[in-house]
Amino acid sequence: MEFNLIERYFAPLGAGLPAGDLGIGDDGALISIAPDHQLVVVTDTLVCGVHFPEETAAADIAWKALAVNLSDLAAMGATPLGFSLAVSLPPNLAQNEAWMSAFSQGFADLIAKLGLPIPLVGGDTTRSSLLTLTVSAKGLVRSGQALLRSSAQIGDLIVVTEQLGDAALGLLLALNRLPEDERSLLTEMQQKDAILALNRPWPQVGFAQSLFPLVRSAIDVSDGLLQDLGHLLKASSKMSGQSFGARIELEAVPCSRALRLLCDKQPDYWRLPLSGGDDYQLCLSVAPERWPQLQQLARRMGVSLSQIGQITDSGVTEVLWFGKPFSVENYHGYDHF
Amino acid sequence: MEFNLIERYFAPLGAGLPAGDLGIGDDGALISIAPDHQLVVVTDTLVCGVHFPEETAAADIAWKALAVNLSDLAAMGATPLGFSLAVSLPPNLAQNEAWMSAFSQGFADLIAKLGLPIPLVGGDTTRSSLLTLTVSAKGLVRSGQALLRSSAQIGDLIVVTEQLGDAALGLLLALNRLPEDERSLLTEMQQKDAILALNRPWPQVGFAQSLFPLVRSAIDVSDGLLQDLGHLLKASSKMSGQSFGARIELEAVPCSRALRLLCDKQPDYWRLPLSGGDDYQLCLSVAPERWPQLQQLARRMGVSLSQIGQITDSGVTEVLWFGKPFSVENYHGYDHF
Repeated sequence: MEFNLIERYFAPLGAGLPAGDLGIGDDGALISIAPDHQLVVVTDTLVCGVHFPEETAAADIAWKALAVNLSDLAAMGATPLGFSLAVSLPPNLAQNEAWMSAFSQGFADLIAKLGLPIPLVGGDTTRSSLLTLTVSAKGLVRSGQALLRSSAQIGDLIVVTEQLGDAALGLLLALNRLPEDERSLLTEMQQKDAILALNRPWPQVGFAQSLFPLVRSAIDVSDGLLQDLGHLLKASSKMSGQSFGARIELEAVPCSRALRLLCDKQPDYWRLPLSGGDDYQLCLSVAPERWPQLQQLARRMGVSLSQIGQITDSGVTEVLWFGKPFSVENYHGYDHF
Repeated sequence: MEFNLIERYFAPLGAGLPAGDLGIGDDGALISIAPDHQLVVVTDTLVCGVHFPEETAAADIAWKALAVNLSDLAAMGATPLGFSLAVSLPPNLAQNEAWMSAFSQGFADLIAKLGLPIPLVGGDTTRSSLLTLTVSAKGLVRSGQALLRSSAQIGDLIVVTEQLGDAALGLLLALNRLPEDERSLLTEMQQKDAILALNRPWPQVGFAQSLFPLVRSAIDVSDGLLQDLGHLLKASSKMSGQSFGARIELEAVPCSRALRLLCDKQPDYWRLPLSGGDDYQLCLSVAPERWPQLQQLARRMGVSLSQIGQITDSGVTEVLWFGKPFSVENYHGYDHF
């Protein structure tokens, strides 16, 4: 049965490797590798009921599982080589043709939309009582040119791509946890867009490949901006021996119009862009003298960038609303346990 | 919490990478890669209650999860580069210090015993109600020198490493499914050895790196000899356009003394070495003229080899007991669904 599943649903995803390489069908995949490069390996697991609600569409689960991995590759500045897929399936899903087709199509959709060759390079399908997926994406960077989280410097501008908080808003909507008088502020299209941001995140994998040496350090926003920026500050502090902090200008944090409406009504909704997570945008630190060139690049590539603050030597992250302190004491970000 | 788990239990496994490379601590791992090589990627998932009984010791779970991946690398003739670990943990295990320590030690034990540098290169720890591990090992082969399952030829000798069937016997013992009058045939030491074969398989990763060009094709025995040999015959048939079969001389199949005792009493116990699975030995096809040189190599490396049959053009696999047909009609091997 395993071999049927792989041949029917996953083999097409293995297309696109050069002759002599192997995607699936042997004990391992074979991928030709370039000299003077480093292999980048990233791994993310999604567990049904933990990382996505049980009723999530099969195609959305697949899209997101691959997207979050590609976002990690992007945060390293890597060019994707391929991905492996380990999926533990309850038998009722394994035997559900419509579900399996939609699931494999979810991967194919993201790859097609990105327009990059990202073949499936091996994996494992196992039986389980609980749907669990582990995607491990592989990429390449030129040796020494990976975008690390540990190389920020004091005075760097803090920059994020696109918008934050929409996926967290989408989750509130999907779980029916947005109070009715706030939901009524949003158009149907705005609600759909938020749920789309939750289910179909768009990793910055193309843009990220052009960021070296314009960007000093990078991390992707998966657990919430404040938490992920915190990891960047901690890693960079450790590397430099200094005590890094940050000043965030809240009014500059890029949000959708829908989210702005909610924040205007109730400032606690700033929790969504600051610590909601699931954004899969990049948080970059940029030397001020590189900022104009980076903006030019982003415009050319159709990526929106916002400067939201600066790295300081204060050892703490302050959030300001038009210059006045804004309390984020209870904004914790995603907790894995 | 996730970061504590990683730092406390997994960070030591990331040691041993060259300067400039990264095991864990950023969005991805960074591994320098050699020119004129192909990257080999293998992935295996173990689900609690499916691939190991719930009461399995933490160190054994870890050992086996890594060993089965290294066995796949061995079957490709690859040199290990490292492994990533995605582990979904029930909170009671994540918070159980003794369990977590033993778990990380299981990986360290296997790596130490193999005496090869196999660093942890990234991963993910997630919360789940069901313990599930996905290990994805990465290795290197010289371009074009991978041991494939699709390159056997008619007349090749079929050769296996070490012994088969002990792990399947160990599982019967562990689950208390061996009838008492058969269990009583075995010494306590023999029973312990069988359970050790189940819990601590020994991947042929060192030997496998020397097999090119002595060996024509290779697969590892994970789902049972007959099933895995069947995959090799099918892949090689497809590649050559011929219809491959095999003749197996059952008396030549290498088994422990304990297993021989059982088979002598009740021939149906041949099911264990033929289709029990979980062996993680190599099944090789070898051109007859290369066989003496391969035997020499194996002696030098302290690996036991047995020639158990030959590849034919019959399209079927016949099993013979001293020349007479032996029925294996109901020997199915491990079924993943």
